[in-house]
Amino acid sequence: MRARASIIVVGSEILKGITLDTNSNWLAKKLTGIGFEVARILAVPDEAGEIEWGLKALLECSDVVVATGGLGFTEDDITSQAIARALGLGYEFNNEAYKLIEQRHREDAVKYVKAAYMPSGAKPIPNNVGVSPGFIVEWRGKKVIALPGVPVEMKEMFERYVEPLLQSLTGRISMRAIVVTNHMVEAEVDELVRGLRRMEDVYVKTHAEKPVKITIVVYGGDVKSACAILERVIGDVSRRLNVKSVEKPLECSG
Amino acid sequence: MRARASIIVVGSEILKGITLDTNSNWLAKKLTGIGFEVARILAVPDEAGEIEWGLKALLECSDVVVATGGLGFTEDDITSQAIARALGLGYEFNNEAYKLIEQRHREDAVKYVKAAYMPSGAKPIPNNVGVSPGFIVEWRGKKVIALPGVPVEMKEMFERYVEPLLQSLTGRISMRAIVVTNHMVEAEVDELVRGLRRMEDVYVKTHAEKPVKITIVVYGGDVKSACAILERVIGDVSRRLNVKSVEKPLECSG
Repeated sequence: MRARASIIVVGSEILKGITLDTNSNWLAKKLTGIGFEVARILAVPDEAGEIEWGLKALLECSDVVVATGGLGFTEDDITSQAIARALGLGYEFNNEAYKLIEQRHREDAVKYVKAAYMPSGAKPIPNNVGVSPGFIVEWRGKKVIALPGVPVEMKEMFERYVEPLLQSLTGRISMRAIVVTNHMVEAEVDELVRGLRRMEDVYVKTHAEKPVKITIVVYGGDVKSACAILERVIGDVSRRLNVKSVEKPLECSG
Repeated sequence: MRARASIIVVGSEILKGITLDTNSNWLAKKLTGIGFEVARILAVPDEAGEIEWGLKALLECSDVVVATGGLGFTEDDITSQAIARALGLGYEFNNEAYKLIEQRHREDAVKYVKAAYMPSGAKPIPNNVGVSPGFIVEWRGKKVIALPGVPVEMKEMFERYVEPLLQSLTGRISMRAIVVTNHMVEAEVDELVRGLRRMEDVYVKTHAEKPVKITIVVYGGDVKSACAILERVIGDVSRRLNVKSVEKPLECSG
């Protein structure tokens, strides 16, 4: 069974079109890369009921839910509290989280005390860029991971603390290649690659560009096996289509 | 009661992080501009079950759901069929839709016949840029609007056919202003603007930049009343904070 992940983006500024959400795209690429099937991406406003509904709806179909946004110390930051309520956990001052804030913001730490409140049993994730720590909390064998919405903070925390942890969960990775064809009509290319869409652990997407491009994503247990699958699919594509160029991962040279 | 809208983005390429979804941001801004409260934005893969689940989940809390993506003629385009199933409607050849395709793609129209299949009772929306028509279908007093995922097609169709229709539904518009302050600490600004967050039909968002920026969004029955509310809120902000500059809509000069 492939491990499934979902992403919940919290912030009214996203729903009002004020801010373009780029976090979910970055996270989706990362999660796919370490072997997850990303099932749903949901954006909700800074409203407790919507965050709670959303988290529950994503947990229904996911082993891991990553939340971003609404973790700060301003009044509209309510993600931690909403997560606690959705999971039926307490919401309390986390001593370890406050120590992390104190280490970076000595005299100002008290201003940010709100960012140290988390669901009971949450394990804080250090924020080495901004103020608010993230956290990870286990729930019925699943993991909920909360990260700030500021992209530079979210990315640093994910890469340093979350990615290594999740990689060990999936036991697989994915790799992608881009094939540029000499075909000008997507309908024709779609017809020719249909058979490849039936293969397990292989995703083939035709893009409506001229000439038509194809993205291939494959999953494998490790770099070697993923590369072998990717090469096989690229071979299949090349036999069916008139291929102009192939862009593949450096790890799969040869 | 404010009219509520949601957006569902269909496409496995979004969930795998291959494509950055910019459609939902554009639509959220448009829908907010014509007076909607955007409640949820959801991205799901090209899987019938997920599209059906998603549409139902958004209809629960919305008067209008806008869907983008998966409307084409390739094998993985299954949005129309999934919408039909979610709403309990038939899925059938739409003569008016096929005529729209024929008008633009004479001899090739037969290749695109799949794009002419729609839920029973759907009203086609012409696509003057690409191949696939969109559609609008009424369901229990709500509207489901399906548009292609290619941004240039989606935008043209929304602005020309959908926006005028929806504008008449909400009977209101929204306007936004951006206030740049001379304050360097978001926690301080948050403290000072808290009272404004209690006002109905006013959204105030502080941004963690240095100096701190504030976005204000207000709703009103028409341009004049929205401008008046915006001016009042800008006045309130200016009394509370040290304001450096204000960027407001051209319509509200004075």
